[in-house]
Amino acid sequence: MKFFGSLSFFLAFFCNAAFGQDSAIFRQISDQIMLHGKCYDDLRVLCKNIGHRLSGSTQAEKAVEWGEQCLREAGADKVWLQPVDVPVWVRGRESLEISSGQSWKKISMLSLGNTVGTAGKLLEAPVVMVNDFTEFKKLSVEEIKGRIVFFNYRFPQQLVNTFDGYGDAGAYRWNGPNMASAKGAVAVIIRSVSTGVDDVPHTGTLRYADTIKPIPAVAIGNISADSLEAQCKRGEVRARLQSECRMAGTKTSFNVIGELTGSEHPEQIVLVGGHLDSWDVGEGAHDDGAGCVQSIEVLRTFKALKIRPKRTLRVVLFMNEENGLKGGFAYADSARAKKEKHIFALESDAGGFSPRGFGLDMSDARRGYLKRYKHLFFPYGLYDFEQQHGGADISPLKRAGVPVAGLLPDAQRYFDYHHTAADVFEAVNHRELKLGAVGMTQLVWLVTQYGL
Amino acid sequence: MKFFGSLSFFLAFFCNAAFGQDSAIFRQISDQIMLHGKCYDDLRVLCKNIGHRLSGSTQAEKAVEWGEQCLREAGADKVWLQPVDVPVWVRGRESLEISSGQSWKKISMLSLGNTVGTAGKLLEAPVVMVNDFTEFKKLSVEEIKGRIVFFNYRFPQQLVNTFDGYGDAGAYRWNGPNMASAKGAVAVIIRSVSTGVDDVPHTGTLRYADTIKPIPAVAIGNISADSLEAQCKRGEVRARLQSECRMAGTKTSFNVIGELTGSEHPEQIVLVGGHLDSWDVGEGAHDDGAGCVQSIEVLRTFKALKIRPKRTLRVVLFMNEENGLKGGFAYADSARAKKEKHIFALESDAGGFSPRGFGLDMSDARRGYLKRYKHLFFPYGLYDFEQQHGGADISPLKRAGVPVAGLLPDAQRYFDYHHTAADVFEAVNHRELKLGAVGMTQLVWLVTQYGL
Repeated sequence: MKFFGSLSFFLAFFCNAAFGQDSAIFRQISDQIMLHGKCYDDLRVLCKNIGHRLSGSTQAEKAVEWGEQCLREAGADKVWLQPVDVPVWVRGRESLEISSGQSWKKISMLSLGNTVGTAGKLLEAPVVMVNDFTEFKKLSVEEIKGRIVFFNYRFPQQLVNTFDGYGDAGAYRWNGPNMASAKGAVAVIIRSVSTGVDDVPHTGTLRYADTIKPIPAVAIGNISADSLEAQCKRGEVRARLQSECRMAGTKTSFNVIGELTGSEHPEQIVLVGGHLDSWDVGEGAHDDGAGCVQSIEVLRTFKALKIRPKRTLRVVLFMNEENGLKGGFAYADSARAKKEKHIFALESDAGGFSPRGFGLDMSDARRGYLKRYKHLFFPYGLYDFEQQHGGADISPLKRAGVPVAGLLPDAQRYFDYHHTAADVFEAVNHRELKLGAVGMTQLVWLVTQYGL
Repeated sequence: MKFFGSLSFFLAFFCNAAFGQDSAIFRQISDQIMLHGKCYDDLRVLCKNIGHRLSGSTQAEKAVEWGEQCLREAGADKVWLQPVDVPVWVRGRESLEISSGQSWKKISMLSLGNTVGTAGKLLEAPVVMVNDFTEFKKLSVEEIKGRIVFFNYRFPQQLVNTFDGYGDAGAYRWNGPNMASAKGAVAVIIRSVSTGVDDVPHTGTLRYADTIKPIPAVAIGNISADSLEAQCKRGEVRARLQSECRMAGTKTSFNVIGELTGSEHPEQIVLVGGHLDSWDVGEGAHDDGAGCVQSIEVLRTFKALKIRPKRTLRVVLFMNEENGLKGGFAYADSARAKKEKHIFALESDAGGFSPRGFGLDMSDARRGYLKRYKHLFFPYGLYDFEQQHGGADISPLKRAGVPVAGLLPDAQRYFDYHHTAADVFEAVNHRELKLGAVGMTQLVWLVTQYGL
């Protein structure tokens, strides 16, 4: 008993001392970022000087230059660009008008990303409204053919985690156009995948199935959808759509990468990142300027605190998350070709809101190991380590066996802004953004220090 | 062993069944509010149709009528007004100009609440800047006398809980004017108690010590404070202040009270509330329109779900929290006089942001009892039950021995808006506000059901 008593005393002392040191580092990281962090200033520059930046656009090129310069200024040992072939989608002019008999009324809309347009011609047809897929499936080809299907599915506001709601309502954006086309519809209007109590339309990508004829698909805001719903209930409604959107080939763009080489295990890479591209409206502030500037802040904080990571810290600003994920694939392909060893990848792509935890998508053993440090995060408001989601850009790495994680910010406001003209710098709070960077830096520090 | 085995099986079964039922009620409450709650609509009416509502103002009178009507419409069994004598403070016109030699420059400012003015006359004096009380204490009476003291104390942004920062920096608003007057200063300018990266001045109350001569005190926004700091470092700076603010006697106003009488223990009162008054700028949206509409939502949700509380559920919209707390005192006095038995009081007065938990200010035994239900709140994002703060309006009840609690919303944004013209309806997110009402209703339901 004496031996075990001494051993457990020794272990307890040793562990407490280690946790005490970790806790002190956590505090330094937080103080540094909350007092001197530059991520909010960086975000202002990205949003206001460059603005939205769809893959293949001039602004996306500028964002690449901006990211490269930011990483250099943050103090990266090496900064480089990794070529990525991205699809180019062009919106052009677009309009949607509704009529229930008399005059036509123009309503606010956005074509979904990657969708075909009407080649600038007027497409006019009767509207058939369905509230969900069940209703849609009951309709025959005759009832759909030659019509514009209005998928009037509401975001399930009762779900506390809005990402669950997005998964649910998002199906109408992802699959609605394919299902409608298969029954001969000429176009699709969806109620935006939006928690907003407003008239803001939300764009976002769709992917046409190979087997169907691509038809134009557009989103309208909740207020317009309420109004269209009321009109459809009263009687026949016609819509006319005019849009110029189209795919315009591919272009070479870049992932922007910077790193601090590890002092003890330089071959072990700990990745942190977000995506540099955004939709072609708003300023891509929450989605995902926030994740980019937070990831750069991680590296800057290591430098500011003179922490040389034991393992290599690599920041990746991915290109083309929104409408192709080509950056994520190119990165994983390159890592495989170079036989790089990624021991961990963390993405921030759920908005610059107050952090609440991390999704940990990895083996139970690794999750259990990281959760041992949970109490260290509690004073910074991060408590939720139960979810298991990383991020889209790092999903190809995950499939290659890399343990991945995703920052989990408070999710209540994200789908008010997501993929809209309202996703601007002003929608991001400086302290919430910085606190996210604090949590990310703390987690990344743990893994560079102790491995995973 | 057999007996104990059976007993523990029985207990486990019984407890799980009870928790299962509680969990189902929690879900019903959440679904009801997230899908059909009216607190956000109520807040719009309060903010946009009435606006700010300082005690004694016409708008405060209108807010009392609004609160009474809301509680009736929500389905209260009884609604009544409880008279409260409130101090009346009038701002009038005010201006602050700064000069470092040449021209005068007007800067954005707000007199602190309850402060004296210059009776509309021009008060001009040299400015002496101090960064904190330590610097101030080093200055002699000669160095302060006849001057305007600029307390240039920064909000400690490194504190993750901004209420800790408020407690720290707030001392300059509460005590700065008294300390400056005691050394012969003629006025005080403070850097606003603000987390904002903007030029928004924050008002808020001060209380003159009986022993000193009251002097005017004003707040300026962070950007103006940065600029004044730079000027003071460069050389002599003069300020001129003109203000008409003054105390203007007292007036009778009201706490607004509504209740659902308990079915089994009507004499046991479970209170939930917020405060109806606000400062005389902005719309008092987060402070504390949010707490009022959330408290009304609690009662409305009981009615909507046809839950007759076992104990009496009482909603109180307090008057005069901001510059006197007379409503809180009047309520506690009345409760004592009537020998009412309050078993619990919950206040929401920290903003309509995503809820993170409850401060539990009560005996360890009661805190431990409530924390047994902690896991039920987790799916709704409430996890923090470690703090011990109720709310100002219910602090007189607390002193009378009532167990009190305070909703703890995410605190990152609150002090960007607190006591400012920026605290408007648009600064409140509909889902965050509703989720706060969800947590409050769940906690109140637990206590009406099981006691405390």
